[in-house]
Amino acid sequence: MSEEFSFVGKRVPKLDAPGKVTGQLVYGHDMKVPRMLYGKILRSEHAHARILSVDTSRARALSGVKAVITAEDIPEVKIGWARDHPVLKSGKVRSTRDEIAAVAAVDEDTAREALELITVEYEELPAVFDPEEAMRPGAPVIHEEAPNNIQEKMRQSYYHGDVQESFADSDVVIEDRFKLPFVTHCCMGTCFCLASFSSSGELTVWSSTQMPFLYQRDLSMALGIPATKIRVIKAVIGGGFGSKLDMYPFEPICVFLAQKAGCPVKITFTREEEFMASPTRQPVICDIKSGAKKDGTLLAREVRMILDNGAYSSWGSTTPLVMMLTISSLYRVPNVKYDVTVAYTNNPYSGAMRGYGNPQATFVLESHMDMLAHELGMDPMEFRLKNANRPGDVTGQGVKISTCGLTECIESAAQSIGWKQKRAKPGNRGVGMASVFHVGGGARIYPSDGCGSTVKVDDFGKVTLITGSTDMGQGSDTVLAQIVAEELGVPVENITVVNTDTNITPWDVGAHASRTTFIAGNSARLAAADAKRQILEAAAQTLGDKVENLDMKDGKVFLKGEPEEWVPFAKMVRSKHFRPDGDVILTRGWYEPPTEKQDKEFRGNISATYSFATQAVEVEVDTETGEVTVLKIGAAHDVGRAINPMAVEGQIHGGVSMGLGYALYEEVLLEEGKMLNPNFADYALPTALEMPPIETILIETDDPAGPFGAKGMAEPANIPTAPAIANAVYDAVGVRIRDLPITPEKVLRALREKAEKAQEGK
Amino acid sequence: MSEEFSFVGKRVPKLDAPGKVTGQLVYGHDMKVPRMLYGKILRSEHAHARILSVDTSRARALSGVKAVITAEDIPEVKIGWARDHPVLKSGKVRSTRDEIAAVAAVDEDTAREALELITVEYEELPAVFDPEEAMRPGAPVIHEEAPNNIQEKMRQSYYHGDVQESFADSDVVIEDRFKLPFVTHCCMGTCFCLASFSSSGELTVWSSTQMPFLYQRDLSMALGIPATKIRVIKAVIGGGFGSKLDMYPFEPICVFLAQKAGCPVKITFTREEEFMASPTRQPVICDIKSGAKKDGTLLAREVRMILDNGAYSSWGSTTPLVMMLTISSLYRVPNVKYDVTVAYTNNPYSGAMRGYGNPQATFVLESHMDMLAHELGMDPMEFRLKNANRPGDVTGQGVKISTCGLTECIESAAQSIGWKQKRAKPGNRGVGMASVFHVGGGARIYPSDGCGSTVKVDDFGKVTLITGSTDMGQGSDTVLAQIVAEELGVPVENITVVNTDTNITPWDVGAHASRTTFIAGNSARLAAADAKRQILEAAAQTLGDKVENLDMKDGKVFLKGEPEEWVPFAKMVRSKHFRPDGDVILTRGWYEPPTEKQDKEFRGNISATYSFATQAVEVEVDTETGEVTVLKIGAAHDVGRAINPMAVEGQIHGGVSMGLGYALYEEVLLEEGKMLNPNFADYALPTALEMPPIETILIETDDPAGPFGAKGMAEPANIPTAPAIANAVYDAVGVRIRDLPITPEKVLRALREKAEKAQEGK
Repeated sequence: MSEEFSFVGKRVPKLDAPGKVTGQLVYGHDMKVPRMLYGKILRSEHAHARILSVDTSRARALSGVKAVITAEDIPEVKIGWARDHPVLKSGKVRSTRDEIAAVAAVDEDTAREALELITVEYEELPAVFDPEEAMRPGAPVIHEEAPNNIQEKMRQSYYHGDVQESFADSDVVIEDRFKLPFVTHCCMGTCFCLASFSSSGELTVWSSTQMPFLYQRDLSMALGIPATKIRVIKAVIGGGFGSKLDMYPFEPICVFLAQKAGCPVKITFTREEEFMASPTRQPVICDIKSGAKKDGTLLAREVRMILDNGAYSSWGSTTPLVMMLTISSLYRVPNVKYDVTVAYTNNPYSGAMRGYGNPQATFVLESHMDMLAHELGMDPMEFRLKNANRPGDVTGQGVKISTCGLTECIESAAQSIGWKQKRAKPGNRGVGMASVFHVGGGARIYPSDGCGSTVKVDDFGKVTLITGSTDMGQGSDTVLAQIVAEELGVPVENITVVNTDTNITPWDVGAHASRTTFIAGNSARLAAADAKRQILEAAAQTLGDKVENLDMKDGKVFLKGEPEEWVPFAKMVRSKHFRPDGDVILTRGWYEPPTEKQDKEFRGNISATYSFATQAVEVEVDTETGEVTVLKIGAAHDVGRAINPMAVEGQIHGGVSMGLGYALYEEVLLEEGKMLNPNFADYALPTALEMPPIETILIETDDPAGPFGAKGMAEPANIPTAPAIANAVYDAVGVRIRDLPITPEKVLRALREKAEKAQEGK
Repeated sequence: MSEEFSFVGKRVPKLDAPGKVTGQLVYGHDMKVPRMLYGKILRSEHAHARILSVDTSRARALSGVKAVITAEDIPEVKIGWARDHPVLKSGKVRSTRDEIAAVAAVDEDTAREALELITVEYEELPAVFDPEEAMRPGAPVIHEEAPNNIQEKMRQSYYHGDVQESFADSDVVIEDRFKLPFVTHCCMGTCFCLASFSSSGELTVWSSTQMPFLYQRDLSMALGIPATKIRVIKAVIGGGFGSKLDMYPFEPICVFLAQKAGCPVKITFTREEEFMASPTRQPVICDIKSGAKKDGTLLAREVRMILDNGAYSSWGSTTPLVMMLTISSLYRVPNVKYDVTVAYTNNPYSGAMRGYGNPQATFVLESHMDMLAHELGMDPMEFRLKNANRPGDVTGQGVKISTCGLTECIESAAQSIGWKQKRAKPGNRGVGMASVFHVGGGARIYPSDGCGSTVKVDDFGKVTLITGSTDMGQGSDTVLAQIVAEELGVPVENITVVNTDTNITPWDVGAHASRTTFIAGNSARLAAADAKRQILEAAAQTLGDKVENLDMKDGKVFLKGEPEEWVPFAKMVRSKHFRPDGDVILTRGWYEPPTEKQDKEFRGNISATYSFATQAVEVEVDTETGEVTVLKIGAAHDVGRAINPMAVEGQIHGGVSMGLGYALYEEVLLEEGKMLNPNFADYALPTALEMPPIETILIETDDPAGPFGAKGMAEPANIPTAPAIANAVYDAVGVRIRDLPITPEKVLRALREKAEKAQEGK
């Protein structure tokens, strides 16, 4: 399909790969600046307690300690999406993650020692760790402003159609409860922050943020420093996956330490801190009721969801809005009702994590789709195909589906694992599938969803793209370089991508919602197209021909139809620069997607296009141990166009690995709000040994709004894996696991219960 | 005069001053990058010798040495303006500065030790150190390509009018010979270079260059690496004054060492190396003949100049072109002839230095103007006023003088030191003056003399100017920030200036010819004006008014005539950004001055405007010791408009100090091509003790082509000081010193000769 292109559709290695594999690139963690101190944070010993006193005198007296701060030393500002989160806590603590004091010292050991010298007297308070319990009358109150422990800003109800009536019309109605656990991102690079004030008062923060421009705003608010005095540089980071969407307390703490010490301060999380103090994916309790006609027409869906917010609200608290999209719009479903409650607990707070709520919603929905198919006596694939979204659909929520490869995804994923031959066969192997619906053309959650770019072409043909977008390891810089190379008609190796320094780069809302290829790609393409136009105009003038007769490809300017007669494009750039009325090639692009903010009833087309995917899996269940082994995954993704198939495959492989962990292995274990397994020995990430063979199938629907047809596809890769596996487990051994992860214990217990029931039934 | 402005004309401290005075800014010299090695260079022991052998085996064997290179290890490419300069020398050496080998080692001591282990066998050759001797038949030949030791590319003849005829018409004709010595820049920050290859093959060079974009080109040529793979970053440097205009051999050597060692390499000159291996101002032997009518009308000027090029040609070899402008155009002079010869010698080669030839030419011319006035029996001030350039003049060389404050400069400088009361009075005090004519609106020496800029205004009102221009300490960033602040109507503290990273900044030819305020200022102003237009358009739309009714100042948007009713400009920026068809403020400016390249007869208007200045001095001569003390300097400078009077005064003070050193103290002493005084103990820079009181007088002629009326003024500050002092010495004690510096020995000798002549005459 990509034969028409020179650079789009090609397997270009990531531009930063050589620097990463040779160890030459300096990650933020390894940065050192002159006079830099090391910061450490003292966190709460209790999940809920009154702070009676904090004595830092011994820490202050320790040699090598340059600053110690508590809540008394900083402005009383609350941060986070709902402004419910003090940076340093006074009065009381609400979770074991709560920051009470911080120190900056000449080295990490001294800082750690100083923390041990700080004495905090607590009066323990009754705590609550279950969101349903938290909402019961009489439960301990976590925030005085929320006496019912409900985050009122996220108490949401959505509907379209009439579910009551349509359940009555349904031939089959089923109802279930699902539970999703705490899991966390496990970025290979932990969180860090390096704050430095210049002598003239400008604050520079090297950060692991995914959202430099919103971070600049958040820092300004938290610090009481004008945003005009703040420069944010996203350093080289080892993964984000949503965990670096918010600004967290450790970041203003780092700045306050730098301010107090009069020296740059760096805070780097240890792996244990990363587990304990970086946010989790929201645990969800979900009641779902689905109804369908005998012929397999999906009629109604009613979902009630309770989210465990933890003690504070981050951007992650808004994930129900993304869940809502899936609930309203994955498959054609004319009647939908959705209620969500987000409850405060004394657990660690949750945040944004790849998929932003969609892994939870999709697990519930796609499990239920299979269960409904079972009740209907239909092949779950046929049931999905019958109700699949189609191009041109406008869903009840006002979502306008332009391109849509869902049918192709379902069919090709199924074929990849031999669905027809393998489904509903005896033995302990089974197949399952699940699909995903996700934004693929940005997501209007902020007044602007745009991205700015500039393109500079120098006298030698070196091209610099300065993009607002943020590459956190996903490879967007490489994709943008390919887009510029293609549009401009110059080799990829000529392109340098500069990003994520708020002093230099144009605005962008940040790396989230799988938006960078689509939004930043369109922006870069606009800037490159203008540069090409100018170069061709210069060439026309220099060569004495008409612009419309000329074209440019691979760095060569030629007469259309006569590609063998060419001049180097850099020469044409110089011909423009060096003429008396000359100018340099320096263009700009700004792309704001043609989307709508949702109205008060949550209706509106918030993305310029949508992505679809289906993953089908074959599993084997060991009925002796309960262990589930995934034998193969067929992952069919409607990516619009794979600008870089290697990068797309990488996203799918990474996503599947994350989905596999969610399905089978991962869970943050908490006891009284304390994490029991904050390390890679006890928190079971899938390793290479657990990874199944993956067949990636790229469905290229050539989206008219995307750059060269591309849609966002990063998050979807990890969303359908878990329900596909749950469905396959059911197909294999007839047990339905409604709460993740699908551990051997749960499978064994379910097999035993099933056997007991069968026994009873006899 | 500046009351109409908010930021132009204000004494804004340099933006980088706090970082410099606190030591926080990291100069290139102090930079460290991981795995960095230290490079050192072995130079020739002889001024002219055949290299018989170079044995580096012992150096290579030394522990800690990571790379050793000689000419054999690098491409045979010649660098420099005339491409006559091998990077590492093989075959023969032509000066004691010649680079023979280089090493990179883990520390500087090891590198130094390794140099000592390199053995070079030489066969000494006859050498020549005087340019006149060098041009005689039979002189030792330095370059085989130039058997007569003449740099043919710079053998130039210029004329306008007919000097022969006009000398015949003159009432007074005088003829003299002047000699100007070797002096050097004495930058507080020595030369350095740090070269690093990325794993993906991109070369980054942190450099002390004043011309990053030409440097990128020069490096590419010297290294055989495509310019598209080269990034140049001008690090924080401690002065340039022209010494960082060229790429010198140590720079490609540094890169070759990094390439060979596979590690970053830094070369930093010691002070001794800085003296011995960074270029000097050209020594000049000048024969001048001037003719005038009895009434003081200047009729003719004939100048023959011989320059000592040293062993190789840098950009500095082209300084005769700048001298030519002064010779043809300082004062109205209808007949001019100028011949120049640049001779190779075995001395260290010369380079660009503040004023670029003009200090030499002006010393000769302005000394001769006084001598001519003396012969005519006129007051030298009156003689100058009679012949002064006037606005609207077009000189014989095609120089179009637009604004011209020369008359005001002469009058006010004279008044400042009490010229009329003090001139030609008995005793050993005297007064003298000299003027200067210099480019003030760029200088078209390259196909483009332009500069690019972008202006970004973020949602908070933080403004980033990305400029192609280079701040090497002269304060141009501050001036550009003031220009943007004024044009845009926002406070200076909102402006961040980003410069001199060839990957990021738009093109600019470099910091030379006093062009940055004028050229980069105009460029920045264009970008800022576009940003203002867009903000006012957004405001008009948001506020429901017409653009033409609105204005913006000090960060406030208001209805014209009603400045008390205002909205913050950042709010208007957001109103544009956050509307459905929104956009960010991201503009660009490109300014190419409306100037002409000189034709083959050197005619053409190469600058968009010209600067003038007059310095008048009072001196006291100790007739016992010959010591000259400058009592006061009145420095009147036509700067068009002082964007930042404090910065302009700083330039004048610094220039006067440099001129004072040239006049009285400084000389690089050479013996057989070896420098005898390569340190601050023996090379006598003026210190604070020698500095006279300076009265700066700013003549603001409000140039229509300049940004807010400004012209370039940096170089002129050091040009007229020396001739003004020489003229004052004559006025004081009646002796004319024709060769700088005016040492006590020379004054005493001249006084003795004068006394002897007077004796003879009796």
